[in-house]
Amino acid sequence: MPGRDDMSAEDRLIARFFQPLATHPGALGLSDDAAFLTPPPDCDLVLKTDAIVGGVHFFPEDAAHSVAGKALRVNLSDLAAKGARPLGFLLSLALPKDVGDEWLEGFAQGLRGDSVLFSCPLFGGDTDRTPGPITVSIAMFGAVPEGTMVRRAGAKAGDHVFVSGTIGDATLGLMMRKGKDWNLAEEQRQHLVSRYLLPQPRNALAEAVRTHASAAMDISDGLVGDFSKLCRASGVAATIDVPRIPLSDAAKAAAAAEPEAIDSVLTGGDDYEIVCTVPPAKADSFRTAARGSGVAVTEIGEIKAGEGARFLAGDGRALTFKRTSFSHF
Amino acid sequence: MPGRDDMSAEDRLIARFFQPLATHPGALGLSDDAAFLTPPPDCDLVLKTDAIVGGVHFFPEDAAHSVAGKALRVNLSDLAAKGARPLGFLLSLALPKDVGDEWLEGFAQGLRGDSVLFSCPLFGGDTDRTPGPITVSIAMFGAVPEGTMVRRAGAKAGDHVFVSGTIGDATLGLMMRKGKDWNLAEEQRQHLVSRYLLPQPRNALAEAVRTHASAAMDISDGLVGDFSKLCRASGVAATIDVPRIPLSDAAKAAAAAEPEAIDSVLTGGDDYEIVCTVPPAKADSFRTAARGSGVAVTEIGEIKAGEGARFLAGDGRALTFKRTSFSHF
Repeated sequence: MPGRDDMSAEDRLIARFFQPLATHPGALGLSDDAAFLTPPPDCDLVLKTDAIVGGVHFFPEDAAHSVAGKALRVNLSDLAAKGARPLGFLLSLALPKDVGDEWLEGFAQGLRGDSVLFSCPLFGGDTDRTPGPITVSIAMFGAVPEGTMVRRAGAKAGDHVFVSGTIGDATLGLMMRKGKDWNLAEEQRQHLVSRYLLPQPRNALAEAVRTHASAAMDISDGLVGDFSKLCRASGVAATIDVPRIPLSDAAKAAAAAEPEAIDSVLTGGDDYEIVCTVPPAKADSFRTAARGSGVAVTEIGEIKAGEGARFLAGDGRALTFKRTSFSHF
Repeated sequence: MPGRDDMSAEDRLIARFFQPLATHPGALGLSDDAAFLTPPPDCDLVLKTDAIVGGVHFFPEDAAHSVAGKALRVNLSDLAAKGARPLGFLLSLALPKDVGDEWLEGFAQGLRGDSVLFSCPLFGGDTDRTPGPITVSIAMFGAVPEGTMVRRAGAKAGDHVFVSGTIGDATLGLMMRKGKDWNLAEEQRQHLVSRYLLPQPRNALAEAVRTHASAAMDISDGLVGDFSKLCRASGVAATIDVPRIPLSDAAKAAAAAEPEAIDSVLTGGDDYEIVCTVPPAKADSFRTAARGSGVAVTEIGEIKAGEGARFLAGDGRALTFKRTSFSHF
């Protein structure tokens, strides 16, 4: 007769590693087929899914807690750019046979830390065996006051273009992981590599974006390609002053050592910064709100009538790029 | 300068295959970072994620449209058991390099068909390359009137136990796929194999379950193990009369040829039927509502005070099982 000990290995794994993250009452301690969530009043839900795959989006030897953090944060970054606050997430985890409890412990610990940090509880999950690499798929849901999700479409001629944080760090960090060396100081190396390893999504900026931006998106596949998408979606052109694009000291040092690195900075992936457009009348207020959020924002250009985003070097010449966007396909 | 032709291969894939499924206005034609959804008034959302992995949950040679259908339906089945109606889904798709347009065309066609059949539009997706097998992860969201999601906990002594459809077909179909043969008629073979290939989730029964059942779950890992979980969650015991468990003609023929097959019928996975408990006063009304929904339901036993689900053979003896539940771990 079945008793407690017919609990499957998957149930045990869920109970041990993931139940502690399921702090929302609607998650029912992960003990039901599904979770429920009473939506906040007068809000729209904002829905997003993004997966990361071992050997594609992270290195198999990356620490389990940073794999968890990356999986969650690439989704949180989209919520931030849409002006949404996180409500929670679903986790779908495919694990090779050789992944043991030690890895799972680190993974759950990373997930738990970020779940608390970003007020984003686990609502449910699914774990499966795979003959392939570790695959972590997150479905994230957030909320905005009804009708206020910030879209890619919405930028108007005259709007100011802002980006958060610094651009290009993660892609330079990835290049270093692959053996590139610009004779950087140890601290600079660490900065770039850690920016690749663990995104810093700008959720603190979400409310400022929501209340000021005419259009926004997160930069995950490179500033040039992503911002060009925003311009296309909005039916506008833009000029971006490349020298105004904010770079970290480490990225500046890499670009000084190898001027061509600026191409990677502008078109490489994994920034997880926000690019947004703000009407002129709201620009000062946006700067103030951003300061209050603790996230640096920098004005880098202007929206124009027409079509196409132009990236202008210091001499006013429009840059061209070998590829404008990162793609695994 | 970037123009239309910097559209990435992933963007093209999404535009060609998946945009036609994104019929909800909040999906924004899959052209934004995220989707939005205004929740139905006075409803709770019901949230579920489940993934299927090539070589684990389906055969690599299975038709792409049935892979899509299976991925969606295993999630729809959970909504049905919780009494929820589908609102939509997010898709996360990891693809090996050798998956081409023909497979994607079939996959999208299968997804589109079921998306229409179950009124369940695509809200967003993510496609990635993987060095591993095809992995399809779905996050599904549905709705129930606030506070009415049917849970596993809730069964009370005296409640009648019902199951939908027939039990064990899919696991027998899987055994046939792996070479088992009971000298069945061709039609019977087809029935079993197709039940494995493409689940028939009982979403038509959802409203009847929601308005009558004290507890419910979908049977995905075998009736014995899953129903035992329901009993544990509810803190009750039960007796199930095995001869009353509804079997298809094909399953009956297999069990006649090999009596031990009944063990697989009761503990094998992939039924995607609903097991639910209904208070005696509501049992007749439930039968009527089920008839109206077009889904067959069969009473198979009764909830008792105590602990443990007992499965009784025709002679009243309690059956024991080698394993009570299907698990990939």
